[in-house]
Amino acid sequence: MRKVYVVGIGQTKVKEHWERSARDLAVSSILEAMEQAGIDKADAIYVGNALSGELTGQEHLAALIADFAGLGGIEALKVEAASGSGGAAVRIGYLAVASGLQDVVIVTGVEKMTDLSAPATAEALVTATDDHYEAIHGLSLVALNGLLMQRYMYEYDLDRKDFAQFSINAHNNAVNNKYAMFRRPMTVEDFENARMVADPISLLDSAPVADGAATIILGSQNVNSAVEIIASAVATDTIALHDRRNPLFLQGACESAQRAYAQAGIGPDGIDIFEPHDAFTIMAALSLEACGFASEGEGVRLAMDGEIALQGRIPICTMGGLKGRGHPVGASGVYQIVELVQQLRGEAGANQVDCRLGMAQSIGGSGATTVTHVLKVPD
Amino acid sequence: MRKVYVVGIGQTKVKEHWERSARDLAVSSILEAMEQAGIDKADAIYVGNALSGELTGQEHLAALIADFAGLGGIEALKVEAASGSGGAAVRIGYLAVASGLQDVVIVTGVEKMTDLSAPATAEALVTATDDHYEAIHGLSLVALNGLLMQRYMYEYDLDRKDFAQFSINAHNNAVNNKYAMFRRPMTVEDFENARMVADPISLLDSAPVADGAATIILGSQNVNSAVEIIASAVATDTIALHDRRNPLFLQGACESAQRAYAQAGIGPDGIDIFEPHDAFTIMAALSLEACGFASEGEGVRLAMDGEIALQGRIPICTMGGLKGRGHPVGASGVYQIVELVQQLRGEAGANQVDCRLGMAQSIGGSGATTVTHVLKVPD
Repeated sequence: MRKVYVVGIGQTKVKEHWERSARDLAVSSILEAMEQAGIDKADAIYVGNALSGELTGQEHLAALIADFAGLGGIEALKVEAASGSGGAAVRIGYLAVASGLQDVVIVTGVEKMTDLSAPATAEALVTATDDHYEAIHGLSLVALNGLLMQRYMYEYDLDRKDFAQFSINAHNNAVNNKYAMFRRPMTVEDFENARMVADPISLLDSAPVADGAATIILGSQNVNSAVEIIASAVATDTIALHDRRNPLFLQGACESAQRAYAQAGIGPDGIDIFEPHDAFTIMAALSLEACGFASEGEGVRLAMDGEIALQGRIPICTMGGLKGRGHPVGASGVYQIVELVQQLRGEAGANQVDCRLGMAQSIGGSGATTVTHVLKVPD
Repeated sequence: MRKVYVVGIGQTKVKEHWERSARDLAVSSILEAMEQAGIDKADAIYVGNALSGELTGQEHLAALIADFAGLGGIEALKVEAASGSGGAAVRIGYLAVASGLQDVVIVTGVEKMTDLSAPATAEALVTATDDHYEAIHGLSLVALNGLLMQRYMYEYDLDRKDFAQFSINAHNNAVNNKYAMFRRPMTVEDFENARMVADPISLLDSAPVADGAATIILGSQNVNSAVEIIASAVATDTIALHDRRNPLFLQGACESAQRAYAQAGIGPDGIDIFEPHDAFTIMAALSLEACGFASEGEGVRLAMDGEIALQGRIPICTMGGLKGRGHPVGASGVYQIVELVQQLRGEAGANQVDCRLGMAQSIGGSGATTVTHVLKVPD
């Protein structure tokens, strides 16, 4: 098994790109990453995308993007795992390079979400839940997360505003990220006054759906300020929340993290920065707990105590996270890796954290699929 | 890089499964394959599926299937490449085992297509074309194949009925396959009198969409009457037909086959049986030519001369192919491998061909993605 390095990154700004299509966004990020990596061809491209069929009428996206990026002929496949699609594509790219079968691989996450009305977009997002046992009852992803947050508050005697620091931290960090959607800070007051979406989840608990694409170039050589991927792991759980023994513990996220820790030969203490799947504040809390950064019921306290800030014990969402940078669903998992690479290379500007090891966790749905990667500055 | 073997197969009958869902079909084929392989767990499952979001409102299919198959917790990801999705999933499973990262991998192809009306199903299938340049003009996959067939007939001075032997051969072979959808022979007269779909393509040029699931178990050990996968290759082409230099030559299918031949250390002469992506008779002809079994314009003559029959020079669609067995779009690529394994193990019953090397080609759309696998009876 060969070592796998990230040797180039590219990304578009996350926003409502009214004038651009999924293929355009993807190609922009690919060309930027290829230029940075100093390559003009590759062996394969794996595309992470969750909903291009439902949202834009375009499946078969990987071959299309390969063609429009001028990569005609190369291996091109799309990987899907709902909102974990970006992480899943990184996983497949990792397999291809680690196996020795491919030398240079492009991994692109892309989502174009603003072509449809909000209800139609919401309907597409519901396909990540269990159609027979959840969607059929009208449960959306935000509703399911609302149930989780409600239960968490009840079990651990917390209030809505105790979750505020997750979003405040994300927005604060997004201010300095020129690719982020929301470059404005947020206060506890803003959080408390935010419009309710699915009680107790408000607009400011929720990451915004948006358009965007991010790309990483993977290779087997330590060149170009490369950052090594020292662990890559996927684990699953039931989709339906009611089938889980303890809905407040993300078993799949835990197993995914444990497998990654075993590969990396470290534990949570060894991780300097963490990019969680903060699609909702409750998901950030549960992810921190599943990965062992906090014990059960303590994830929110980590935020309340300022430990997730850039100068805290375990900085998260260092470039804005899903909440501040924006959440183009199938692209977010690749944005996370791009941002870890910026940090690990020391290119994170005002948000720079002193770090050598970073972890990213890309989650599909409410924790049914979890992809964890650990990245490291080579010795 | 490790060797990769198919150590178990499973499949459901292909038909209109009104009473069963995608997850049910997938689980049936998985449990059958696992029993045959003598395993009760695996390291990962990769699911090939083209349209479950559009057709059944269910994305995030791999985690769901893993759970319902009792495989809770394992790595589970979905791979999409339109009608080449089944072959694409086999490709990813191959990468995982070859890399040494996973020891036992399940690859399942599944499609549930009969829940919607015919127009709605057709609309879903159109997502495999280029939305900006083909679908927007009302071009469907069958219409695109109609253009190809028309042009082929013009260039090579052929008649509609010259294509009949592709469908007749497929139907003849399906008669003895208990998993096939159409177990009835067809005559030239039937073919000539068939209802027109997109001139010159008639109903009997076209593989039927249907429901079904097929599974293979991949491992690194030569056990359980294993069949070795000695080549695995993906190549792409433009999706839009008008962007191809020569629409009558499937460049992507050719490159995919050439890469597979190079890995296997053989040429077309070394292949004993071939499973083409015969979604339409014209596609079978073009695939034969792209793989070097016939020169350009001679693919149809191979059929007219009986060379594709079980006793011919290069038997194709040996268990019915897409036309006779049925074409559950994202599952077909896995059915092809299952059927090759049946042949290579000598378990093909009345359809048995004397063979040691078989090739399968799974094509997405009209040739934009092509996945080629070569299988061999171990020495």
